Amino acid sequence: MKMDNSPARGTRDLLPATVAVRDHVLAKITEVYHRYGYQRIETPALENIERLTGGQGGENEKLIYRVLRRGLDEVVATETSLSDLVDLGLRYDLTVPLTRFYGANQATLPQPFRSFQFGPVWRAERPQKGRYRQFYQCDIDMLGEESVLAEVELIEATTEALAAAGLSGATVRVSDRRFLSALAASAGLPEEAWTGLFITLDKLDKIGWDGVRAELPSRGLDDAAIDRLQESITGLQGGDPATLGKRLADAVPGLPEEVLGDLTETATALSALGSLQWEFDPTLVRGMGYYTGQIFEITHPASSSSIAGGGRYDKLIGRSLGRDVPACGFSIGFERIVDLIEGADTRAAVAVLYEADVPLSVVTGTARELRRDGRTVSPVRRRGKFGAQLGKLQDWGFTSIVHLKDADGPGEERPLSER
Amino acid sequence: MKMDNSPARGTRDLLPATVAVRDHVLAKITEVYHRYGYQRIETPALENIERLTGGQGGENEKLIYRVLRRGLDEVVATETSLSDLVDLGLRYDLTVPLTRFYGANQATLPQPFRSFQFGPVWRAERPQKGRYRQFYQCDIDMLGEESVLAEVELIEATTEALAAAGLSGATVRVSDRRFLSALAASAGLPEEAWTGLFITLDKLDKIGWDGVRAELPSRGLDDAAIDRLQESITGLQGGDPATLGKRLADAVPGLPEEVLGDLTETATALSALGSLQWEFDPTLVRGMGYYTGQIFEITHPASSSSIAGGGRYDKLIGRSLGRDVPACGFSIGFERIVDLIEGADTRAAVAVLYEADVPLSVVTGTARELRRDGRTVSPVRRRGKFGAQLGKLQDWGFTSIVHLKDADGPGEERPLSER
Repeated sequence: MKMDNSPARGTRDLLPATVAVRDHVLAKITEVYHRYGYQRIETPALENIERLTGGQGGENEKLIYRVLRRGLDEVVATETSLSDLVDLGLRYDLTVPLTRFYGANQATLPQPFRSFQFGPVWRAERPQKGRYRQFYQCDIDMLGEESVLAEVELIEATTEALAAAGLSGATVRVSDRRFLSALAASAGLPEEAWTGLFITLDKLDKIGWDGVRAELPSRGLDDAAIDRLQESITGLQGGDPATLGKRLADAVPGLPEEVLGDLTETATALSALGSLQWEFDPTLVRGMGYYTGQIFEITHPASSSSIAGGGRYDKLIGRSLGRDVPACGFSIGFERIVDLIEGADTRAAVAVLYEADVPLSVVTGTARELRRDGRTVSPVRRRGKFGAQLGKLQDWGFTSIVHLKDADGPGEERPLSER
Repeated sequence: MKMDNSPARGTRDLLPATVAVRDHVLAKITEVYHRYGYQRIETPALENIERLTGGQGGENEKLIYRVLRRGLDEVVATETSLSDLVDLGLRYDLTVPLTRFYGANQATLPQPFRSFQFGPVWRAERPQKGRYRQFYQCDIDMLGEESVLAEVELIEATTEALAAAGLSGATVRVSDRRFLSALAASAGLPEEAWTGLFITLDKLDKIGWDGVRAELPSRGLDDAAIDRLQESITGLQGGDPATLGKRLADAVPGLPEEVLGDLTETATALSALGSLQWEFDPTLVRGMGYYTGQIFEITHPASSSSIAGGGRYDKLIGRSLGRDVPACGFSIGFERIVDLIEGADTRAAVAVLYEADVPLSVVTGTARELRRDGRTVSPVRRRGKFGAQLGKLQDWGFTSIVHLKDADGPGEERPLSER
């Protein structure tokens, strides 16, 4: 009986060619992050369900795969609450486990701790093209660093990692949640109306000023306030980084000194990296509710959406540890970037094509000899029409063959491209 | 409020030093398997529950983490079977997903297909020292190869991979399920009594011949049969591989020609690998019910239990594909071997120790300059007593420091071991 061999709905198998590209990209990223001192850690896929539903995951908490307790009776009584049947869930991101990890291990970790994580996460989303229910996240975080050294280093390391993976020419967009708050306050809005304003501003690059202005009255701004807001934002977009501090102070008079200092220091340090393309983007908002300071995104001409994003979240670890720890993270959209990258270097691979009557020890000995120089060598038995088999070998990624006709030893190696 | 930050019961966090050893071991194994042409694939952690409970997992099927369907009402309205609430489970091995993968993708895969898998599996076992509910498996399999090329290559590649990871001096033990069946039949036992005999024989290295002989009457053998069995087995242990064929034919007259041929061909090819230590072990049984031919295990002086095991399973893929495909696999006990390996090469890591008033762009610029030669470089702010901080830096894995006192630039690099 032939079964349905599809993977579970919304998930996928990764074939060798796909895995090769992914491994290549990961190796390039890892090499760069290692040079900056980020150390890979790993946490389990399963977390206690209370941890996953503590509110820090926002909308993602609705997408948790919940795991049954072990040892339950096989019949569930009427009126049982599902939550009584569940004690574990699959993680939906790497940030919730990181905060728990730091809470558990912080005494033995370096200060600041530079963390690198790469691993699968699970979200029970509606399946759609290009989105899967299991996907990989690739995060670096610096925990325990209150200065903007964290922001600047994360940005530098991540753009370098992306370039090493083949995505040079990226642009970093930087903003700050505290700046956005001050901007909203200076527009005269009460705190409960700020989020609405941010949601509208976030759409500027999609709907333009006409669209934004049309929405803003419903966010509580009158025409005069809208004019002032547009002027402030326009004056902050682009321009010379060296004048960003002055322009910020002019545009948002209520901006706290500390925020002004952080942003000008970041601007100076980022501009000192000659090769880095970056800009202050006053309309960058980012979704997660836990950000408390600077936020950033990376865009690339090859992708219509951002390829990396992150920010500072100084209040999140406190929920696990009982005291706040400054923290800042950057996440590369791994699944997105592997689709943009052309492919790994193909390795030379030799097929030892042996006739059925050649003794096995001659076959394996020939392969062993050829493997000495580090190449990939696999024996394959001669079968069917010669030309057709060579075609298949080439399709399968072999670059040359050695034909082993008898125990006397192999013929000369022949490249498959020349046939 | 401080929460309990432990990982879920039976699981663990992997700290940077542990991950470094694991990554090092994996890289060494991967490099060898790549040279033999094994290609890494990946399947999702979640599989449909019907697939996981199809009987091929044996006892492991009792240890499945079952996942609730999405979109269920939160309160169970009427008496319901647990199985109606579940549609997915976490995989408990990599072989079940591999057979599904092959069934789904075989048309595009090389023939034979050399598969390499490395990934986590989950089993809801009783937590005990050194055993975790999430652990990694590391498998190679050759699918579509009926000859003992598969057995010989898997054994050669795996011993080479283990040696590359630091475990040279391993011994391979080889047996064959078909040999065991013929042995049991020649002892006069009916087929339903064979498994009992194998369970007893498997204990020979623990309980010795006295223990085995004491058990065998309960397995249905009389004294004469026990004497003959002991003589057969003793005659097959150790000895010159070149005479194995003759000794097998003498000891088990009913042994099919095909099995005799396979075992002598394997013996010849393995003996041709001068550096490989191996032996035919007539008491090797191995647990999984799906083996159909040769079975093997690797032992090492550093470990009291085997560090790798595998065998041929020609009837397993047929359950997914609808037609049998010859298959043979070898699994390295990854969690076991990483505990035996001393540690990865430590990389030189430089701390740029900067005073608080040094401008950020000088700190990051200094780090960037030092990073040029490929070393790991991380800025750390000067804090507290100098000697105490140097001690901490060394504990955290830094091998040297550069002290940055002011904007004039760094002092000389100083190794931390010399303080």
